[in-house]
Amino acid sequence: MAADRIKLTPKAARKLILSALTGAGTAPANATYFTEAILDTELSGLEGHGFYWLQFYCAHVKSGKVDGKARPSVQKLSPVAFRVDARRGFAHPAIEKGFAKLIPAAQRYGIAGMAVHNSYNSATLGFHTGTLARHGLVAFGFTNAMPVIAPVGGSKPVIGTNPLSFAVPGRKGKIAFLIDQSSSAVAWTAVKRAAEEGRAIPLGWALDKDGQPTTDPKRGLAGSMAPAGGYKGFGQGLIVEVMCAALAGALRGPEMGSFMENDGRPIGCGQFFIALAPDRFSGGQFARQVTALAQSITAQKGARLPNARRAANHKRLAKAGLPIERSLYERLKSFAAR
Amino acid sequence: MAADRIKLTPKAARKLILSALTGAGTAPANATYFTEAILDTELSGLEGHGFYWLQFYCAHVKSGKVDGKARPSVQKLSPVAFRVDARRGFAHPAIEKGFAKLIPAAQRYGIAGMAVHNSYNSATLGFHTGTLARHGLVAFGFTNAMPVIAPVGGSKPVIGTNPLSFAVPGRKGKIAFLIDQSSSAVAWTAVKRAAEEGRAIPLGWALDKDGQPTTDPKRGLAGSMAPAGGYKGFGQGLIVEVMCAALAGALRGPEMGSFMENDGRPIGCGQFFIALAPDRFSGGQFARQVTALAQSITAQKGARLPNARRAANHKRLAKAGLPIERSLYERLKSFAAR
Repeated sequence: MAADRIKLTPKAARKLILSALTGAGTAPANATYFTEAILDTELSGLEGHGFYWLQFYCAHVKSGKVDGKARPSVQKLSPVAFRVDARRGFAHPAIEKGFAKLIPAAQRYGIAGMAVHNSYNSATLGFHTGTLARHGLVAFGFTNAMPVIAPVGGSKPVIGTNPLSFAVPGRKGKIAFLIDQSSSAVAWTAVKRAAEEGRAIPLGWALDKDGQPTTDPKRGLAGSMAPAGGYKGFGQGLIVEVMCAALAGALRGPEMGSFMENDGRPIGCGQFFIALAPDRFSGGQFARQVTALAQSITAQKGARLPNARRAANHKRLAKAGLPIERSLYERLKSFAAR
Repeated sequence: MAADRIKLTPKAARKLILSALTGAGTAPANATYFTEAILDTELSGLEGHGFYWLQFYCAHVKSGKVDGKARPSVQKLSPVAFRVDARRGFAHPAIEKGFAKLIPAAQRYGIAGMAVHNSYNSATLGFHTGTLARHGLVAFGFTNAMPVIAPVGGSKPVIGTNPLSFAVPGRKGKIAFLIDQSSSAVAWTAVKRAAEEGRAIPLGWALDKDGQPTTDPKRGLAGSMAPAGGYKGFGQGLIVEVMCAALAGALRGPEMGSFMENDGRPIGCGQFFIALAPDRFSGGQFARQVTALAQSITAQKGARLPNARRAANHKRLAKAGLPIERSLYERLKSFAAR
């Protein structure tokens, strides 16, 4: 396995990502923030979420499923409310453009909200909420996806793995900690990979098409993903679906185009972000309480802050280099070479 | 058992609650919304959360642990941001007074936020978010509590069962659906009751003081509550703690007075509410998407919307009457008779 892998410095990885995106037909202005997001994901050690998905993004631009040259529009509904139309382009330029309005609004008024529709896979949601936290804001992020989770007691998927992210600002433009969690017990890709490799999955990961627990990943993929913590995980997924499909006016899971297949149909999912300015609300207590809360966790042997692993990976991988399978590397290079 | 119980009509229950609160020393103006909240909790079938806790509220007023005559103050930080000081009184009058500002702000600007500190047990959180939904708003509610959940991998509780509530408006002042879920696998009171009755608890409910799973409820109470879905439940609890202790500037779990003991120490917990106006963000898609999402769930045999049971209980109990143990009834009457 190791022989099929190469390692890239962050600088080389950034160049690869940017050139693949633009080579496939993405406007340079739409590729900058997106490139940083993909690089950040790889540096966080979330292998498979950066380079792996990049090949789909590029293929989708080439086929026209996503419009790499779309110019997202930001509608100001009020001084604190924004509606962004991604115009069937990537999510990242839409989010970046909206954040340019959202950030000063939240800083000035204490709270602001931003909806995105006609959108695409926002990849690692925590990159976006983390961006807000680096601007000193407490941030909620929501994004919906293709249906893979059935309601508890039912069997037909109605919502996606629908992640929720929450980022907490630390001192001097840093992130104190960051939560980024899907509504399913495990990631869909974990079941997908088990199926590809012919491995059984533990009970509690997925349900078959009749809503019964299964250890067969293929039955799981044909059925549904188990929600994390039963109805509470479904609850989170439902919150995300309401925020994105109903409040942001994007498509519901069952209405969307595929995140993977090059089916010519735009994804059309949505995102929603809420940003809050700590010092407006907290009466000066924010930094003290965040520090004390974090310490109450890190002081316990065996416990860690939600993003501690990602932060440690950042340091390690920036030095050690980012691993990528040679075949995937070649595929990404082929998008760049045009 | 049944012989020790009596039943109250909603009208008689309302009178009992109001007279117990005011008889114990609560100002009538601070008792109205609170009475409706307690009555609504009983009508929802959440036995033990209404009448049961009322005896503690009354005892705490009598002892001065909570100030029944406190006049909460609402600070307007911006047209959309409010900071409410409950002034060591009940949470309910503080929330009610803040909502009078929050609701029109959210309706006008699309989003608004409200922090509450120096506060008390907000009881059923979904009553408050439900109130916002009845005003046509999508609502998030957060409240923190005494520490009972340890970080995953650790053993010392740092956060409470920290519920999150999310309410979705329906048509004509109705609630489409409502989520109200704690961060723990089960309610703390479920473990408390098992301990009182000498029953074993299932694995997965609680951990002993060394962080190991236990079936002994007493060891569980001396240890910690298991988070729902492992680190994802802890993640929810952490979000709630940041929103209440850090963002609202209230006390963290370990700093609080007890919710039960008449220890003379104010609780000092916090609440946070975010309200969003659907039609500002959704481009007219909100009602259609909420209806379609709800139908995709209710159409499946065995599945139900998160608040379906509470709503059904409302209808049933309004007719059948609200059961209450005679000894508790007498105790509540004793507060009223002054």
